[in-house]
Amino acid sequence: MLLTVLYIIGITAEAMTGALAAGRRSMDLFGVMIIACVTAIGGGSIRDILLGHYPLTWVAHPQYILIICCAALVTTWIAPLMSRLRKVFLLLDALGLVVFSIIGVKVALSMEFGPGVAVISAVITGVFGGILRDMLCNRIPLVFQREIYAGVSLVSAVLYLALTALGQPDLLATLVTLAVGFSMRMLALRFNIGLPVFQYQGEHD
Amino acid sequence: MLLTVLYIIGITAEAMTGALAAGRRSMDLFGVMIIACVTAIGGGSIRDILLGHYPLTWVAHPQYILIICCAALVTTWIAPLMSRLRKVFLLLDALGLVVFSIIGVKVALSMEFGPGVAVISAVITGVFGGILRDMLCNRIPLVFQREIYAGVSLVSAVLYLALTALGQPDLLATLVTLAVGFSMRMLALRFNIGLPVFQYQGEHD
Amino acid sequence: MLLTVLYIIGITAEAMTGALAAGRRSMDLFGVMIIACVTAIGGGSIRDILLGHYPLTWVAHPQYILIICCAALVTTWIAPLMSRLRKVFLLLDALGLVVFSIIGVKVALSMEFGPGVAVISAVITGVFGGILRDMLCNRIPLVFQREIYAGVSLVSAVLYLALTALGQPDLLATLVTLAVGFSMRMLALRFNIGLPVFQYQGEHD
Repeated sequence: MLLTVLYIIGITAEAMTGALAAGRRSMDLFGVMIIACVTAIGGGSIRDILLGHYPLTWVAHPQYILIICCAALVTTWIAPLMSRLRKVFLLLDALGLVVFSIIGVKVALSMEFGPGVAVISAVITGVFGGILRDMLCNRIPLVFQREIYAGVSLVSAVLYLALTALGQPDLLATLVTLAVGFSMRMLALRFNIGLPVFQYQGEHD
Repeated sequence: MLLTVLYIIGITAEAMTGALAAGRRSMDLFGVMIIACVTAIGGGSIRDILLGHYPLTWVAHPQYILIICCAALVTTWIAPLMSRLRKVFLLLDALGLVVFSIIGVKVALSMEFGPGVAVISAVITGVFGGILRDMLCNRIPLVFQREIYAGVSLVSAVLYLALTALGQPDLLATLVTLAVGFSMRMLALRFNIGLPVFQYQGEHD
Repeated sequence: MLLTVLYIIGITAEAMTGALAAGRRSMDLFGVMIIACVTAIGGGSIRDILLGHYPLTWVAHPQYILIICCAALVTTWIAPLMSRLRKVFLLLDALGLVVFSIIGVKVALSMEFGPGVAVISAVITGVFGGILRDMLCNRIPLVFQREIYAGVSLVSAVLYLALTALGQPDLLATLVTLAVGFSMRMLALRFNIGLPVFQYQGEHD
C-alpha cells in the first residue's frame, strides 16, 4: 500500500533526525536509539493515546521499531556524509511530515471523530515526534521557532479532509495532498517563510 | 452549569499563561497555540489518560481547543497590557486551579475510584498543565518552586471530597471549595507562603 | 510474593533518586514528591499507557504512592547521610532496574503480546522513570550518557523471556535474571563500562 511505503520512508527520515539530535548531545547508542524511536513514532503514539486508539501502531507491528533502530545505527555510520545528504534528508522529512498528517486524519476518521479532531490528530502525528525529540535533548522544540512546519501539517490535513469529503478516490486525495503539502514545505524552506513570532518580555506571569 | 462556565474561565486563564510563556521564548504563532493548549488541557488530558477516561474532554468537545486558540491569539494582541492585567490574571488562574481540582475529583469518583485516587486526580488536573508548559519552554517547572500551588489543589480536593461524603449538595460543596481554595491561593500570594525547600548538593546520585 | 517485595524495594530506591534530583534543583516539598513519584512509577505508567493496560498499577493500588511519598520525605531528612549510603543506594537502584524489567516482560506477556513488545515493555518500565525525572529537572537524561543501564534492562528481559520460554519455573527464572542483571549492572559500575557514544557536530538537521 502506498501509504505504508511512505510511512516507512517517513519513520526512517524521522529516525535519522532523532539520531543526529542525539549525536549532537553526545549520547550513547541507547540514547541514539531511544531518541530515534521517540522522534519517529512519538507523534503517532501520542495521537493513539489521546484518541484511545489501541493497540498503538508499533505495538501491533513491532517491526517498525526494528526499522527505526536500524536507521538510527546506519545514521551513526554515515554521519560524516550528512552534509552532502542534507537536501535528500530535508526532502524525506517533508514527505514524512505530510504522510504522518494524512495518517493522523485517517485514524481519527476511522474512529468516527469529526473534522476538528481529525485536523488536531494530523498535526499531533506530524509534529509531536520532533517536539519530544527536542524535549529529550533539552532544548526548546525547533518546530516552534522556524520555517512553517506545523502549518504544512494543518493545510495537508484540511486538504485531505476536503478532498475525501468531496468524494474523491483515496489514492487521488493522498497524491494531491502529498504534492501540495510537500511543495508548501519546500517553498517555506526555500524562501525562509515562517509564522509571525510572539515576543513578550514581562516578568514571570 | 456552574462548573462548565468556571472550566471555560479556567482554560482561558491557563491558555493565557501558556501564550505568555511561549512569548517569553519568542516562539512563533504555532508554538504559542500549542503551549496554550498544553497548559490549558494538559493536566486534564494526563488525568484522563492515567485513569483510562475516554474520550478525553477536548476530544469529545473540540470547541474547547477553539476557545484556547482564540484566548492565545488575543493574548498576543493584548500582551502590552499584561502588566496592568496581572492581578486579574492571577485571580483567574487561582480560580482555574480550584475548578480543575474539583473536576479532577469528580472524574475519579465518576469512575468509582476511591478518595486516594480522587485527590491525586485533582492535583494532576490542577497542576500538570503548568508543568508541561514549563517543560516545553525548557525550564524547571515553576510549580515546584514557589508559593503554594499544588497544596491549594490538594486542600481543595480533600475539602470537596469531605463535603460530598458528608452528603452536602453538590452546588454548596463546589462553592465552599472554590471560596476556600481561592482564598488559600490568594493568601499564599499575598504573604509569599511557600512549602519548605529541599536542597541537596551531593554528586549525581 | 517475591516480586511484590522487590517491586516495593525498587520504587523506594527510585523515589529516593527522584527526591535527590529534586533537591539538587532546590525544589519545594511538592516538587520532591512529584519527582519521586514520576521516577518510581513513571516507567510503569508509560508502559501501561502504551500497552493499554488499565487500570495502571498505582491507580489500582494507590498505597504505592503513599510508600513513594514517605520514601521521598525520609530522603529529605537523611540527605546528609547519602554519601555514606551511596553504595547501598546504587545496589537498590540496580535491583529495582532488573525487577522493573521483569515486571515489564510479565505485563506484556499477560496481554498476549510477543517477545519483541515484551522486551520493549521491559526497557520502558526499567528506564523511563529516570528519563522523566531528568526531563522535569531540566537536564539531558543521564541514562543516555553513562554506564550501561538500559542494556542491563534489555539483557534481563531477553534472559527472563528465554528461561520462561524454555519452561523454567517462574521463581527460578526470576532469581536467575535478578542475579545476572544485577551483576551486569554492578560490573558496569565497577569498570565504568558504557555504550559507544555517538558524536555529531553538524548544523541543526
